[in-house]
Amino acid sequence: MSLVGAGPGDPDLWTVRAARLVRAANLVLYDALVDAVSLRALTDAPCFCVGKRAGRASVKQETIHRLMIRAARQGKHVVRLKGGDPFVFGRGAEEALALAEAGIPFEIVPGVTTAVAAAELAGIPVTHRGMASAFVVLAGHTSEALDDALGAVRPNSLTVVVMMAVASRAAVAERLIAYGWAPGSAAAIVCGASTPDAWTWTGRLDELAGAESPAGVAGVLIVGDVVNVRTALMGATHQVDEAPQDATNRQDAEAGEVKYGRS
Amino acid sequence: MSLVGAGPGDPDLWTVRAARLVRAANLVLYDALVDAVSLRALTDAPCFCVGKRAGRASVKQETIHRLMIRAARQGKHVVRLKGGDPFVFGRGAEEALALAEAGIPFEIVPGVTTAVAAAELAGIPVTHRGMASAFVVLAGHTSEALDDALGAVRPNSLTVVVMMAVASRAAVAERLIAYGWAPGSAAAIVCGASTPDAWTWTGRLDELAGAESPAGVAGVLIVGDVVNVRTALMGATHQVDEAPQDATNRQDAEAGEVKYGRS
Repeated sequence: MSLVGAGPGDPDLWTVRAARLVRAANLVLYDALVDAVSLRALTDAPCFCVGKRAGRASVKQETIHRLMIRAARQGKHVVRLKGGDPFVFGRGAEEALALAEAGIPFEIVPGVTTAVAAAELAGIPVTHRGMASAFVVLAGHTSEALDDALGAVRPNSLTVVVMMAVASRAAVAERLIAYGWAPGSAAAIVCGASTPDAWTWTGRLDELAGAESPAGVAGVLIVGDVVNVRTALMGATHQVDEAPQDATNRQDAEAGEVKYGRS
Repeated sequence: MSLVGAGPGDPDLWTVRAARLVRAANLVLYDALVDAVSLRALTDAPCFCVGKRAGRASVKQETIHRLMIRAARQGKHVVRLKGGDPFVFGRGAEEALALAEAGIPFEIVPGVTTAVAAAELAGIPVTHRGMASAFVVLAGHTSEALDDALGAVRPNSLTVVVMMAVASRAAVAERLIAYGWAPGSAAAIVCGASTPDAWTWTGRLDELAGAESPAGVAGVLIVGDVVNVRTALMGATHQVDEAPQDATNRQDAEAGEVKYGRS
C-alpha cells in the first residue's frame, strides 16, 4: 500500500518512484487532478477516480479508506495517487491514520507540491533574496480556513500562496486588504499549472476579485513582491496569457527553446 | 539549459523529467545535497559539484552563473541540479534571472521540496484537518531571516517549517518562545530525509536547544501540533530514532513491508 503524490498535473513531474509503483500496482485509486490518460498508459491495473469531478460529488473519505483497506487486505498492491503532495491539504494524513489504525503496512511517497510548482511554472519563486524570506501556504475553500490562516501572518511580510481559492478570490483579496495588506500588492492566479490548460493572470491585489479565470480548472493564488520576478523573467506583467502557459513551455522545451529566457 | 529540482536526496524522488534531462545532459552543475553517485550512474557527462561542502567554501554564485551561461552559449545542454525545489530558497530565482539577462533560453523543472518532504517522511503532515490549516516555510541560517519570518506569524496558529536551521535550533526555539509560542509546543528535527543518514528527533519546543543531532547533515525543524501525528502513525514520540529512519523505511518498502503502519 502506497500513498503517493502525483505532482501538479504533468506526469513528467511524477517522481521516478511514483511511476515505478504505478507500473507495479494491482489497483490505483486516483484524485480528479491526476492525468487519467497518462496513468492508464503506465498500467493495466484497474484505476478508479475517487476525487471530485465537475458536476459530480467525490467519493466519501470513509469510502476511500474502506476501499484501500479492503484491497490491501486482499494482498493487492494499492497505489493511492493524490494530486500534488499527499501531506499538503487533500486529507492525506487522514488516509495514513486510517491505514495505521487498520494495521495496514504502507509507505508515503512525497510529490511535487502544487503550491510551490504552480507559482514556479509561472516564473514566480515563493522565496527570493531581498524580496521574501518566507512563504505561507493555506487553503481558501472555506471562509473559516481563510480567516484563521490569513489573520495569522503579518501583512506585507512574506509570500502568501492560497490553494483551492480561485472561486473565493474576491474573499481572499478582501480579507488580506482588511488585515492590512497593501491594495497595490502584486498578485497572481495560476490555473492548471503544468497541464495543457495552464493559464496565468498577474495584477494587483485589489484587482484580483475582478480577474477573469477559466472555469473548472484548479488554481492557486499568489500574493507578494515575488510575483514581480515573473515580469523580469518574461518581460510581461499584468496580462492574461492567451496561450496556455505551460503547453507552450513544453513545446518550446522539446524544441530546445526558451522557457523563461528573453530572446 | 534546465534549472532542475532534485528533491530531498533519494534519486527515486527525482521527477521523471529530471532523470530524463540528466541522461541527455552535456554538463551537470549540482548542489552538495544531490547524491553524486546516483547522478554519475545516470550520465557520462561531466558533473561538477558547485555547492557548499563540509570544510570547503561553495563556488561563488556569480561563478555558477558564468559557468551556466558559457556552457549554454557553447551549445551544451546544461542541467543545473539543485537540492529540493529550485525556487524554494537556494537562490534558484537569482540563477533564472541571470540566465534571462544573458538571453539564455531555459526551462524550470520543479522538484519535491525538502520543506514538505522531510516532515512527511518522518510521518508529519504540514497540514492536517483540525490541527493546522496552513504552514509557513522559512530559512534559519541568519538571525535577520529568523527575526523577519518568525515575527511574521501569529504564535501557535500554524505549522512552522524552518530549513537550514539545525545549527541555529537554539535561536529558533528562543525566538519562537519570545514571540509567544507555547514552550510545550510539539517540535521535531529531521535530518537527511530520504537518505541513508535520515534521523528524526521529536520533543517539546523548549527541549529543541538541547536536542543532539548528527553533525554535517542538512536538517529541517518543524514546530506545531502536526508533529503529534507522527506519534499516532508510529506509536513512538519524543525519542531519538537510533536506526536511520528512512533507510529503514526503504528496506521495508522493498520487502513489501510497513512504512508507517502498525504491525
